[in-house]
Amino acid sequence: MMPIARRALGLGLLSITPILAAGHVWAQAQRTDPLPSWRDGASRQSILDFLAAVTTEGSPDFVPVPQRIAVFDNDGTLWCEIPTAQLMFVLDRVKALAPHYPAWRTTQPFKAALEGDTATLAAAGTHGLAELALATHANTTPEQFNVIATEWLATARHPKFQRSYTELTYQPMLELLRLLASSGFRNYIVSGGGVEFIRAFSDSVYDIPPEQVIGSTIRTEYRFPHGGKPELFRVAVMDFIDDGPGKPVAIGKFIGRRPIAAFGNSDGDLEMLQYVTSGPGRRFGLLVHHDDAEREVAYDRQSPFGKLDRGLDLAGPSRWTVASMRQDWNRMFPVQ
Amino acid sequence: MMPIARRALGLGLLSITPILAAGHVWAQAQRTDPLPSWRDGASRQSILDFLAAVTTEGSPDFVPVPQRIAVFDNDGTLWCEIPTAQLMFVLDRVKALAPHYPAWRTTQPFKAALEGDTATLAAAGTHGLAELALATHANTTPEQFNVIATEWLATARHPKFQRSYTELTYQPMLELLRLLASSGFRNYIVSGGGVEFIRAFSDSVYDIPPEQVIGSTIRTEYRFPHGGKPELFRVAVMDFIDDGPGKPVAIGKFIGRRPIAAFGNSDGDLEMLQYVTSGPGRRFGLLVHHDDAEREVAYDRQSPFGKLDRGLDLAGPSRWTVASMRQDWNRMFPVQ
Repeated sequence: MMPIARRALGLGLLSITPILAAGHVWAQAQRTDPLPSWRDGASRQSILDFLAAVTTEGSPDFVPVPQRIAVFDNDGTLWCEIPTAQLMFVLDRVKALAPHYPAWRTTQPFKAALEGDTATLAAAGTHGLAELALATHANTTPEQFNVIATEWLATARHPKFQRSYTELTYQPMLELLRLLASSGFRNYIVSGGGVEFIRAFSDSVYDIPPEQVIGSTIRTEYRFPHGGKPELFRVAVMDFIDDGPGKPVAIGKFIGRRPIAAFGNSDGDLEMLQYVTSGPGRRFGLLVHHDDAEREVAYDRQSPFGKLDRGLDLAGPSRWTVASMRQDWNRMFPVQ
Repeated sequence: MMPIARRALGLGLLSITPILAAGHVWAQAQRTDPLPSWRDGASRQSILDFLAAVTTEGSPDFVPVPQRIAVFDNDGTLWCEIPTAQLMFVLDRVKALAPHYPAWRTTQPFKAALEGDTATLAAAGTHGLAELALATHANTTPEQFNVIATEWLATARHPKFQRSYTELTYQPMLELLRLLASSGFRNYIVSGGGVEFIRAFSDSVYDIPPEQVIGSTIRTEYRFPHGGKPELFRVAVMDFIDDGPGKPVAIGKFIGRRPIAAFGNSDGDLEMLQYVTSGPGRRFGLLVHHDDAEREVAYDRQSPFGKLDRGLDLAGPSRWTVASMRQDWNRMFPVQ
């Protein structure tokens, strides 16, 4: 209804019409536009072109449903990674477990974690971080760990946004996951993060079930204690780091066929994108570029976390889409 | 039509009626009985009771579709394991590769494999077998290995039955896979065999896609040669043996939740059955018992392959179904 007609009629009843009409238009846009948070432009168009090519029967690039597999990095690709939720989880768990381990108060890197001494933590490097990760992720069954991670995710808040981490997923990527799923794709997460941590929320947040989550793992053993029940038990030994060249290796092991689309945001995702996009037939690779200092954080070539350096050089020759968060996304998070 | 009426009428036209009628009855039985190769009895009934309990909405044992996961051993559970197809593949591959490795003619266990010297092969034990397996499975991409395995499966013949190994799947188990799939289950293979070998035929033979096959693995590396394309490459180092306690560990890693039904045939499947059937809610475990010397091979407690010893003792107290191939199956293979 045109505003002039509304004003001319001047009926009270009609005052709700624009609201209803707006709601109707919005719902219709949702139905007709599967990517409402993606602005018109080359990035959005490259996604739609790829999907049309591989899902249109008779198209030279048509891909049968069983081969429609897409792989997604998680941190920085599907949700905010600065700070990394799992790192915050580790620090909080060190504090929660500290009463049981009095020696931690005087032993590094635990002392630094307890005192919030970030300089010492940074100096401890990957090795120190791994030690903290193992101490806080092991000595439980997977079921027990799931409860611990779920409870933490329900209460922890991002220091800047003051929201739970699961609210800091990227709305445009959620729409992309949904569009791929409704186009016959199975979406997998292939993350450097711990697989059990991601499995604690992937189903409810991304609609990605546990068996479609691949990640880093710690050693797990089968135990059947006398008088007890059979269980799996997580022990403090690293099993597999699912990052860099580990990502295509894990894809081969877990999925057993080459996906046709890959999504990442850092140099740790390059081998996965290379492996996926160099296969035969139509392929799609996309890098999320964190260039929105206002709505999120701007970082790329020199960032200690989520560093995207080689990726920005390789994207052009590899014909990967580089999605600018600032330019291509009209909305960042589900709750604004 | 009753025979007496046919004879009384004596019309030539009617002579085809019994054939048509029989065909109709058979097709109808297929439609109404999802397990036509399972004889009436406790085993068949236990399967149907379990499925009714977990798929009937409102039933206290109802299980939502995403949690309907079933795991199957392969060798001896889904297809004939004496001799084991993959072992025959290894021996044939040693012969095929021998011209490239002249030293094999004088080096054990390769010499024994080339000469069919089974006594020496048996004496070489697991270690010798692993050496042969690595030498014949490595030094390829997964795609190349898939072609090699597929070609072998198309031409190799079982020494006794003179059929291809993929024709020596068990018809009652194929019906069970189909019934589970049509009841909302995802069927996984969890096998001690090599994952890439099973993936070469699981989709076409069992309707189980590569990503639902878990097995033993050799180390795989990511390579991006200069001037070449990114690829995975299989190297001659053992990565993981998916047998015994390794099966529940692999289930936790790959699937990330406890399946509700497990099927095996040997003591190597016991930990998997224990893990699956001790979870909360309604569970189902089944052991295939090879007791049919006439139609297949009879073996259990003392067999060097597929040994079922502890399993026969544990089945009763664990409330697992023991399916007798002789008594419970009215048909063995798809082609008779």
